[in-house]
Amino acid sequence: MSVKREFVVFARKATTAPDFPLNDLPGKGGRMDLVARCICNALWISHDLRRDTRIHIIAYGRPNPPLCITFDGSTLRRVSPDERNIASWIRKALKAESGRKANPGITVQKRGFQELVKELEAEGKFFYVMHERGRSIDDVEIHENPVFILGDHIGLPKKEESFVERFPHEKLSLGNISYLTSQCITIIHYILDKKLRRPPPPAALS
Amino acid sequence: MSVKREFVVFARKATTAPDFPLNDLPGKGGRMDLVARCICNALWISHDLRRDTRIHIIAYGRPNPPLCITFDGSTLRRVSPDERNIASWIRKALKAESGRKANPGITVQKRGFQELVKELEAEGKFFYVMHERGRSIDDVEIHENPVFILGDHIGLPKKEESFVERFPHEKLSLGNISYLTSQCITIIHYILDKKLRRPPPPAALS
Repeated sequence: MSVKREFVVFARKATTAPDFPLNDLPGKGGRMDLVARCICNALWISHDLRRDTRIHIIAYGRPNPPLCITFDGSTLRRVSPDERNIASWIRKALKAESGRKANPGITVQKRGFQELVKELEAEGKFFYVMHERGRSIDDVEIHENPVFILGDHIGLPKKEESFVERFPHEKLSLGNISYLTSQCITIIHYILDKKLRRPPPPAALS
Repeated sequence: MSVKREFVVFARKATTAPDFPLNDLPGKGGRMDLVARCICNALWISHDLRRDTRIHIIAYGRPNPPLCITFDGSTLRRVSPDERNIASWIRKALKAESGRKANPGITVQKRGFQELVKELEAEGKFFYVMHERGRSIDDVEIHENPVFILGDHIGLPKKEESFVERFPHEKLSLGNISYLTSQCITIIHYILDKKLRRPPPPAALS
């Protein structure tokens, strides 16, 4: 199945070595708890995975930034939705030798935010930057190959926001509440699910 | 601040003794990972807590069911939104001697689902049972003291659903996707936040 929904999370503290303890995801993991929650909400629904969704975490934490950690719902296997289990798979993926995969649905690549954006643009994607001063997501017709870009608890750096502005994009808002990044992902999925349920507009009489 | 939004989660496996290991929330914790995610999404937004929200977990796991574990956003302190930290506070609350509180925002009481429902009804609450064959939440004017009732990964037992039907209630649906219970909570909050933003309807001309 070709990917239809894609998320990019800029995680400026997420650790880029497999030495972080699973007992301290917020601290030594560099907010790996936040990262895991984002992955959970991007890919899981009740008793199933969203096979049409992919999420990229751009990790800018120590000691080897940037790394792009991708979870692909179409090929992911054996992972549970709890934070510890998702983080343990991130650790395995960070440990795996280059070229080998710990899990068919998880990839780690030496790649920064801007490289990823350029690559996704070349694939014909359209970018939606989540932004408190963006247009209301309810008023927007969503492109059929959307990539939603989100910051972490600190937000997307201005430099990266400006970079995305060079490409086809729109800024979207979820209203006047600042939700957790992981909650934004759930809400975006819900709104897209709802838009898909709507009957198509009636054809013009001719 | 008086509570305005309330959630009840029926957690049929959630452990009712403080002896579960924080390294195995899904297994020995009896899906305590799911419980923690529900609490996170009920109470946290970015850099803040929802002070107007309370969530009750009715734990039916071994060895001392049922217990009602309540997290109250108006008084909660020092808890972080990650699963492990929330679960560690549940453990502390389960350990605390009766009458003593580990955290001013967390209460554990020997009380089952039906007792809680009766008590909430006496406080003038209106129940919304999340149900795949319910009315669409978008079409419903939400009561000002709503209690949203959700099942866990297995669902709300028919017996408890029938019990709530004796009281003022409505069944609500979020569409044709079965979301994780924790995701349902995020979506409900989002929809309520949005309804609050809407300008009131214009007064009728008289």
